[in-house]
Amino acid sequence: MAGSLPRSPLAPDQFPDLPDIEGVTFASAAAGVRYAGRLDVMLAICAPGTSIAGVFTKSSTRAAPVLDCQAKLGLPGDAGAAILVNAGNANAFTGRNGTDAVAALVDATASATGLPENRIFTASTGVIGEPLPHDKITAHLADLVSNQSPDAIADAAAAIMTTDTYPKGATQSVVVDGNPIKIAGIAKGSGMIAPDMATMLVYIFTDAKIGQAELQDLVRQTSDGTFNCITVDSDTSTSDSLLVAATGASGVDVSDDAGFANALHTVMLDLAHQVVRDGEGATKFIEIEVTGCTDADAAKTHGLSIANSPLVKTAIAGEDPNWGRVVMAVGKSGAAADRDSLSIWFGDTLVAENGWVSETYREEDAAAHMKGDCIYIRVDCGMGSGNATVWTCDLTHGYIDINADYRS
Amino acid sequence: MAGSLPRSPLAPDQFPDLPDIEGVTFASAAAGVRYAGRLDVMLAICAPGTSIAGVFTKSSTRAAPVLDCQAKLGLPGDAGAAILVNAGNANAFTGRNGTDAVAALVDATASATGLPENRIFTASTGVIGEPLPHDKITAHLADLVSNQSPDAIADAAAAIMTTDTYPKGATQSVVVDGNPIKIAGIAKGSGMIAPDMATMLVYIFTDAKIGQAELQDLVRQTSDGTFNCITVDSDTSTSDSLLVAATGASGVDVSDDAGFANALHTVMLDLAHQVVRDGEGATKFIEIEVTGCTDADAAKTHGLSIANSPLVKTAIAGEDPNWGRVVMAVGKSGAAADRDSLSIWFGDTLVAENGWVSETYREEDAAAHMKGDCIYIRVDCGMGSGNATVWTCDLTHGYIDINADYRS
Repeated sequence: MAGSLPRSPLAPDQFPDLPDIEGVTFASAAAGVRYAGRLDVMLAICAPGTSIAGVFTKSSTRAAPVLDCQAKLGLPGDAGAAILVNAGNANAFTGRNGTDAVAALVDATASATGLPENRIFTASTGVIGEPLPHDKITAHLADLVSNQSPDAIADAAAAIMTTDTYPKGATQSVVVDGNPIKIAGIAKGSGMIAPDMATMLVYIFTDAKIGQAELQDLVRQTSDGTFNCITVDSDTSTSDSLLVAATGASGVDVSDDAGFANALHTVMLDLAHQVVRDGEGATKFIEIEVTGCTDADAAKTHGLSIANSPLVKTAIAGEDPNWGRVVMAVGKSGAAADRDSLSIWFGDTLVAENGWVSETYREEDAAAHMKGDCIYIRVDCGMGSGNATVWTCDLTHGYIDINADYRS
Repeated sequence: MAGSLPRSPLAPDQFPDLPDIEGVTFASAAAGVRYAGRLDVMLAICAPGTSIAGVFTKSSTRAAPVLDCQAKLGLPGDAGAAILVNAGNANAFTGRNGTDAVAALVDATASATGLPENRIFTASTGVIGEPLPHDKITAHLADLVSNQSPDAIADAAAAIMTTDTYPKGATQSVVVDGNPIKIAGIAKGSGMIAPDMATMLVYIFTDAKIGQAELQDLVRQTSDGTFNCITVDSDTSTSDSLLVAATGASGVDVSDDAGFANALHTVMLDLAHQVVRDGEGATKFIEIEVTGCTDADAAKTHGLSIANSPLVKTAIAGEDPNWGRVVMAVGKSGAAADRDSLSIWFGDTLVAENGWVSETYREEDAAAHMKGDCIYIRVDCGMGSGNATVWTCDLTHGYIDINADYRS
């Protein structure tokens, strides 16, 4: 299925020009794990001294490579690191076979790179429940090591795609204490996307210098307002993994630096938005802002209830400003709401206030907004100062086409 | 839209032959609330001494008639009762106008029937956020009263439909202390169906004799295992209402009678299944049984997570025995699960056990089961004795067609 889908109408014009990050190199290969004739494995190698932080799916049925990464994260060691990722097979719900496959990949990568096993991080994405043909991957390891190059991140972004219709990358640079710092990241994901997790697969690299514990705290916090605020279909993957590698090659310490944190947030939000824009079958990118709630958690609960509602998502696909379904989704969310204090906007148009349609509302104004491919919905609950913003896409025939036929 | 949809392929062959219930009469009318040329209002009148019990949506944005019913339920009074229902307009999120419309309907019905206002129960179903043209309904009240008949429940079932493709009815008879008791019920609903509520609209009548408080307890308990275990699209309506009227006309006291409770459960489960079988766009009726959980709540949480997963529902639409998505849905549910203790069946076929595909599994066996229109999925968590069963339907192009175009 991957590769045969038309490029999302919400895709950016082109893959961004990502800078080399000193201390990181990449190589990719076509190993034929599942797909023929395309890159499906990438190996990134990070220099000694690199800090690796990460967040992962909270699924109770998470995949073997996720469990392996979680066990290794934060262990002491300055030996550098490797990240090996394949597409086409998730190595999830594969029992003992899955654990053995991870061990085989880690062992072979350690041998090929000279790195210790506890600095080898792997990830797999694709179909669930089929044994990973790890021999196909390890057969390419010698080439993946000898082909390492600092400017091959674009191929790596392509190699990790499954039902994605375009590779996803983002970059920011920031000046800290007069010194330039670069950040470059890649992501994959288009279905089985829901919050309360890291995301699908995301790899971000920077030459900033920052300790592992501090980087971990920063990544966890930043995930909450970026990847944990997106949803395509409310289905949480067994494989979601986000790793951030800080090589320290710039020599610039970014501890507690607000500019670096802001740049990292910008890269993560950019990648999160690109995942939503490649949501399976998506034709509309939707931003939902919820304000005036009892607290921020309530606002996020309302926002995700709206974002995950099949009736809201199909109405938007049909370009129908059906604000009654937004009211329904607020009502079912379980968070506090007062029907008669609700106000709703579609774009700049105030649709409803004080529990009923606004006196100034003209449906043609909201309907005009629905014709665009970026839809903005705001709900004010009129109860407090808790706010949140979440992002999603519409639910279309394309989603059914892709997912009623994934394995065949 | 209503009336223009083809009859669900999962519909029963015909509307059942519902018995007259002594003490209840019905009439219906074509009031043109929204639809032209079809019945859209029904009035049921119950004799003095009737006990009325009910359960309603828990939505925080519930509609004006729901709030009115909830305020009246359980008030003392032996004066009989009337139930007035319209389709086409939900009178939800209509502010002061909504409350006024309910008052107008109740006042006119009380005048036409001679019943006190606190024994008039109304419900409205259809589009949200538009003012209810209550004058169109009250204009028919005199005829609705004069046309009352004990054998007109089938028309009443048709009058309350919206996007339903067939009217829904069910009946049971049971012998209590040597005396026959009859139960007959009707329901509507096909989208915006999710549990944690009563259901869409359900009206059940019996000639049994039972006090209001005891009937209320019985209805609430029985809802938990029937209407609260179904879902079409995870979207909870603002208008869900279930009323059970026990006229007592048989003179047979059914207090604490297990046979009556069982018969009522059978009627409610039958109607709940008929709602799922008319799920918007449905082509498969799906039963999901979850066993071996830490408790029954955990089993229900897993079951609903599977039933609401767009990826599970689209896989079933595509007749793909994609058990990896069932694993995913268990993993994301938030209830306790141990990946390596999970077992999964599709139909009679053991697909997975001990955290991986079963050694005996042949995909053609499960694939054959998926071709049918009744799909049975069982998940055993291997952790305890908590069980639950839930019911849903698949997610198809038909759902998108219906809901991307509802209001236009």
